[in-house]
Amino acid sequence: MTPSSLHQLIEALRVLPGVGPKSATRMAYHLLQRDPGGAINLAHAIEYALANLKHCRRCNTFAETELCDICADPQRDAGKLCVVEMPTDLMMVEQTLAFHGLYFVLMGRLSPLDGVGAKDIALSQLLSRVADGEVAEVVLATNFTAEGEATAHYLAQMLQARGLAVSRIARGLPVGGELEHADPGTLAQALVERRPL
Amino acid sequence: MTPSSLHQLIEALRVLPGVGPKSATRMAYHLLQRDPGGAINLAHAIEYALANLKHCRRCNTFAETELCDICADPQRDAGKLCVVEMPTDLMMVEQTLAFHGLYFVLMGRLSPLDGVGAKDIALSQLLSRVADGEVAEVVLATNFTAEGEATAHYLAQMLQARGLAVSRIARGLPVGGELEHADPGTLAQALVERRPL
Ligand SMILES: [Zn+2]
Ligand SMILES: [Zn+2]
Repeated sequence: MTPSSLHQLIEALRVLPGVGPKSATRMAYHLLQRDPGGAINLAHAIEYALANLKHCRRCNTFAETELCDICADPQRDAGKLCVVEMPTDLMMVEQTLAFHGLYFVLMGRLSPLDGVGAKDIALSQLLSRVADGEVAEVVLATNFTAEGEATAHYLAQMLQARGLAVSRIARGLPVGGELEHADPGTLAQALVERRPL
Repeated sequence: MTPSSLHQLIEALRVLPGVGPKSATRMAYHLLQRDPGGAINLAHAIEYALANLKHCRRCNTFAETELCDICADPQRDAGKLCVVEMPTDLMMVEQTLAFHGLYFVLMGRLSPLDGVGAKDIALSQLLSRVADGEVAEVVLATNFTAEGEATAHYLAQMLQARGLAVSRIARGLPVGGELEHADPGTLAQALVERRPL
């Protein structure tokens, strides 16, 4: 009874992560009924992004050019390479202004349970990237989730076997954090990873 | 630092209801990285639906033809008109097989707090629809939310003033429902709306 083009739109919306049949239906009605202008804009933005975005040849983040702005910047310290899971993580690190090296974006993390293995993230590209003769230290900045930790562990072994210095960003209490409000796991980790003064 | 076509895609995704900056970003990466085929399909489905869907001239639901299948069916009882908020509500009523009349879809509900007034839903179209000389009873099947109730109240006054019989779908315990598990409001309503046997 649903017209087929409406049915197709509802089905098509379900490619979006976290969108089930109910919210896809709600989204379709919203687009058609309340915001056809936003809908056509969305269709064009998808087509434009797919046509124009590629991966930076050097760091694998999304870019419209062969080299992204950071990789093309001769001021960056080419001896340090920070490995992150996603482009958003790169932006978070960049916002700290505490890192002046270059990046490598895995575009994912190892997640055997979801069928994401070493071949599904950009590991071989990372290996050729670190073989440029300039990278001396790799800073692993994957998430502190089970999957991010497993990915860091795997990368560390692979990179150390190639004679590279490998480090991991620190875990601990947040700046301004009070022991009273820290979760026990983080506090335990802050104790284990204590630094000599 | 975000390439502009990626930025535009993230912004464009925010027209979807319930999608904020974080989930728009997650959706954009997912489309680009994991499902470009689904993404292009989504773009085409939006364009196709916008180009092909119109409102049924008679009942106002989405249709690809002048008249939807139900309105075009001469077997339906043209003396009864069931008024619902959205096309999904029409489908829910239709699935019961308990109603053989025709429908009218408001495509919304009165919601003064959200700025949705009488002009923003299809009230004037409903008034000309019920003036066809065939409709004798209007069954109000808007939701039992504050807004749906207010809409039903408003419609009832408007339709009764035009000499039409107006009814409201019943509230009460669900089929198979036990008093022990009913919420007090529903139980109270079931008492108030008790029927003589
Ligand atoms: Zn780059
Ligand atoms: Zn119709």
